[in-house]
Amino acid sequence: MATDGRIVVACCQIAPVFGDPTANREIVAAAIRGAVVLGATVVVLPELATSGYVFADRAEALAAAETADGPSLALWHSLASDHRVVIVGGFCELDPNGELRNSAAIVDHDGLRAVYRKAHLWDAERLIFTPGDASPPVVETAAGRISAMICYDLEFPEWVRVAALAGAQLLCAPVNWPACPRPVGERPAEVVRVQANAAVNRMYVAACDRVGPERGVDWVGGSVIVDADGWPLAGGEASADAMTLTSGCRLGEAADKGIGGLSDTHADRRPELYGSIVE
Amino acid sequence: MATDGRIVVACCQIAPVFGDPTANREIVAAAIRGAVVLGATVVVLPELATSGYVFADRAEALAAAETADGPSLALWHSLASDHRVVIVGGFCELDPNGELRNSAAIVDHDGLRAVYRKAHLWDAERLIFTPGDASPPVVETAAGRISAMICYDLEFPEWVRVAALAGAQLLCAPVNWPACPRPVGERPAEVVRVQANAAVNRMYVAACDRVGPERGVDWVGGSVIVDADGWPLAGGEASADAMTLTSGCRLGEAADKGIGGLSDTHADRRPELYGSIVE
Repeated sequence: MATDGRIVVACCQIAPVFGDPTANREIVAAAIRGAVVLGATVVVLPELATSGYVFADRAEALAAAETADGPSLALWHSLASDHRVVIVGGFCELDPNGELRNSAAIVDHDGLRAVYRKAHLWDAERLIFTPGDASPPVVETAAGRISAMICYDLEFPEWVRVAALAGAQLLCAPVNWPACPRPVGERPAEVVRVQANAAVNRMYVAACDRVGPERGVDWVGGSVIVDADGWPLAGGEASADAMTLTSGCRLGEAADKGIGGLSDTHADRRPELYGSIVE
Repeated sequence: MATDGRIVVACCQIAPVFGDPTANREIVAAAIRGAVVLGATVVVLPELATSGYVFADRAEALAAAETADGPSLALWHSLASDHRVVIVGGFCELDPNGELRNSAAIVDHDGLRAVYRKAHLWDAERLIFTPGDASPPVVETAAGRISAMICYDLEFPEWVRVAALAGAQLLCAPVNWPACPRPVGERPAEVVRVQANAAVNRMYVAACDRVGPERGVDWVGGSVIVDADGWPLAGGEASADAMTLTSGCRLGEAADKGIGGLSDTHADRRPELYGSIVE
C-alpha cells in the first residue's frame, strides 16, 4: 500500500473456457500476473471463472465443480502468496454437503479467507445451484476491508446494504452479465446500478464481468470500478474484449459516510421505519 | 387514459419565488395548465414548491408554511378537478400539531388524497423541519397506483422498496437537488440513483426538480421520468431552465416484476436474510 493509502484494484475481464477448469486455471494465472504488473494489490475475477456459466443441467455443473480445497483455489492461494495480492473470484463449488454452489472466494497470502455463496440466483441458476443463506463476508485484508457478492445479488440494494453496514470499504463482485438491449447512448443498466449501490453507501465497488460468447449467450463485458461517490474510475462501457482494468482507490475514504453538511449515508437511515421490507 | 393504458406524466421544473406562497400559486397554476395542454394526466411539482427552500431559520419557514387545508392545496385541488389530473407536489406544511414539515401532497379531483412528510431530512433541514414517521402512501388514482416521497428519501433504497412493495406503479418525487460537481460527461448522480431505484423495483419514477438560484444555492435542474427498466424517457440532464417534461407511460407494466426467464425483482428477494438492515 502506498503511503497515501492508495491501492490499485484490478478487474480481470477474461473469457473462461466452458467446462474446462484446467484451462481456466491457466487463463486466470496469466490474468493475475498481468494485473500484478500493473500494480494491483486486489484482483477481481468473474463469476464462475473456473467453469464457465451456461450449464445445460446439474450434471454438467457437477462435472466442472471443485471443492474450496481443490486445485483452482490452491492455485489462487499460491498466486496471492507469491504476489502479495488479494484475489476475489467466482468458482463453481461442490460444498462439503455435496451441494452445488455459485460461490466466490476471498484469498490472500494467508490462504482462503472466506467463501461466499450466491444468495440470489438468476433465472435458471436456481435449477442447478443451491442458494447461500449467509451474509456477504467482510474480510480485513492488507488492502482494506473487502466484501464479496455475486452478479444478481447486486440487484438487491438490501444485500449491498448488509455488506456496507458490516464495514466493507470495497465490495468485489464477480459477475457474468448477459447482454441485453439498451437505448442508444446509455451505459449498461448493470453499471448504473453498481454506481447507485456505491454512492448510497459511500463504498467502492469493483464488478468484474466476463467476455467470450458461450453456447449462444453473449455478455455485457462491462467490468467497472467505481469510487465511493459512485463515479466510474475505470470501465463501465460494454466491450467484447478480454482486458484488465485497474484504478487507484483510497479505500479509507469509504470509512467516512458524510456527504456534505450534516448528512451521512448511513447515520441518516431510519431503520425503525423499514420493517415491511423484511417481512 | 388512452385505451392502451398509456398516460402522460409531466414534471413541471419551475423556479419558485422564495418565501412568497402567493406568487408560487400563480407559477404552479400556469405550469399545470401548460402540462395539461401537453396531455398530462399526472403532474409532478418540485419539493417545497409553495415556499422555496433556502430558509435561514425556523421562523422563516414558519412564515411561508401553510396547513394542508390552506390556499395552495385548495388551488391544487381546484386545478386537479378542472383538468382531471393528479397533482403531486411539495409544500411547506404547518401540521395540525404545529410542527413544520417538508411535505408532499397527492391531490386529484376528489381532493387531497394523501399527505406524505419527508422522513429523511437533508443537511440543515433537520434544524427546521420535523421528520415524518409514516411510510410513503400508495394512492389508487384514475391514472394508476401512485406513491410519493421527497428528494433525499430517494437515496435510501429501503424507502423506495417500501413504496414499491406496497404496490406503487409510479413513484412521484418532488425534489430540490442542490448542484454539485460531477465528472465531465456524467449524468447527474441523483438521476443515476433514480434509474437504479426504478429498475430494481420495475416501477416508474418521476422526479421533479427546480431551477432558479436561491440565496447562492444552485440546482441540478435534472428532472427525469424513467420507465420500469430504469431508462430515462424524458429529462435527466442538468439544466438551468424552467421547463415541463412529459412522457407517455404505461403504468400497468409496473405490475409485472418479471425481468426475464425465471427472475422477478420482488419474488427473488430474500427478506429473511435482510434482518441487519432494520436493526
